[in-house]
Amino acid sequence: MARWEPNARERLQAAALELFEERGYDRTTVGDIAARADLTERTFFRYFTDKREVLFSGTEEFEKLIVSGVASAPETMSPLDVVVAALAASSPFFETRRATARKRQALIAAHAELRERELIKFTRLAGTLVASLRERGVAEPTAALLARTGMTLFQNAYERWIEDGKKRDLAHHMHASLAELRLLTAEPASAKPRRKASSGSAGG
Amino acid sequence: MARWEPNARERLQAAALELFEERGYDRTTVGDIAARADLTERTFFRYFTDKREVLFSGTEEFEKLIVSGVASAPETMSPLDVVVAALAASSPFFETRRATARKRQALIAAHAELRERELIKFTRLAGTLVASLRERGVAEPTAALLARTGMTLFQNAYERWIEDGKKRDLAHHMHASLAELRLLTAEPASAKPRRKASSGSAGG
Repeated sequence: MARWEPNARERLQAAALELFEERGYDRTTVGDIAARADLTERTFFRYFTDKREVLFSGTEEFEKLIVSGVASAPETMSPLDVVVAALAASSPFFETRRATARKRQALIAAHAELRERELIKFTRLAGTLVASLRERGVAEPTAALLARTGMTLFQNAYERWIEDGKKRDLAHHMHASLAELRLLTAEPASAKPRRKASSGSAGG
Repeated sequence: MARWEPNARERLQAAALELFEERGYDRTTVGDIAARADLTERTFFRYFTDKREVLFSGTEEFEKLIVSGVASAPETMSPLDVVVAALAASSPFFETRRATARKRQALIAAHAELRERELIKFTRLAGTLVASLRERGVAEPTAALLARTGMTLFQNAYERWIEDGKKRDLAHHMHASLAELRLLTAEPASAKPRRKASSGSAGG
């Protein structure tokens, strides 16, 4: 019988992370996850299309944050700053996930099928960014370059955020990544090599 | 009987592209490809691990070009210029593939399993770039940011190269993409919005 289950999504996610840690990702089935969460498999599939999706269920919310962030950015803001501001606006969303973010990332790094799913999600997010920038009147090849650059900055910031012992938020790391990219692109061709390139203020 | 087949790799690739066009990617089997190339399935699997790989067999050669490009760049060159120069050095390699590049890209765009494979190849190339930059003494988070930025510029340049009616080479488009990124990152936060962002000299 389908009935309302309080916090079913969150219970399933917590159960999945527990089980992935206890017995490994490969040896955990959807049935195991549902049982641990005291729910049915049928309920699992109302929330997630497959086992992988348990780790990526926040993507749609993140996507909405990006779209509204780009749409609401001031007219006078440069396109790259719009992209960075929109991605940085997701900072509170990620803050609520800090406790599990590191475990989740280690799982993804260890499983090719999860890395694939993550790459596809990033590509989808880049596509969303392109569409949002087009809405603002940014031309096509520039929009694609901006979107990919934004995702590059996000991935860099996310890795620094996960490792950050000082627990500074994602917005901090987005701006640190942007500052570093500005430094890297500003360097003239004749500049001295940066043998010990600084990790700026972003390191953990 | 295994025997030496002249240009087996190239014959298989040409046969695959022909068949993908004639009857569609999904309806073409490895057996079909081998038969069209007048070779055996066994020979096919000596060159490619699966049907997808026929479209990605140049990756290793491209990877070697990147590694040697980074290693041989002048000491005084800035890290981003090193990355761009190494990727631009692959220009002749891609020029020999210009005739089929557009068809190949349309196939990839139309099939999720090919897009996945392409994403994985790009991630692998970014990893190679990181390792090569580490060899030059570039620190870890900076190396990752540079590698992803390089792949972003490459993807952008590749798309422009494919669409370029004037047939300018990939090196031209790499430098045009870098010039555009420099423009985008140089813009101050208070700049006027670029409602009609120019595609620079890179458009087709």
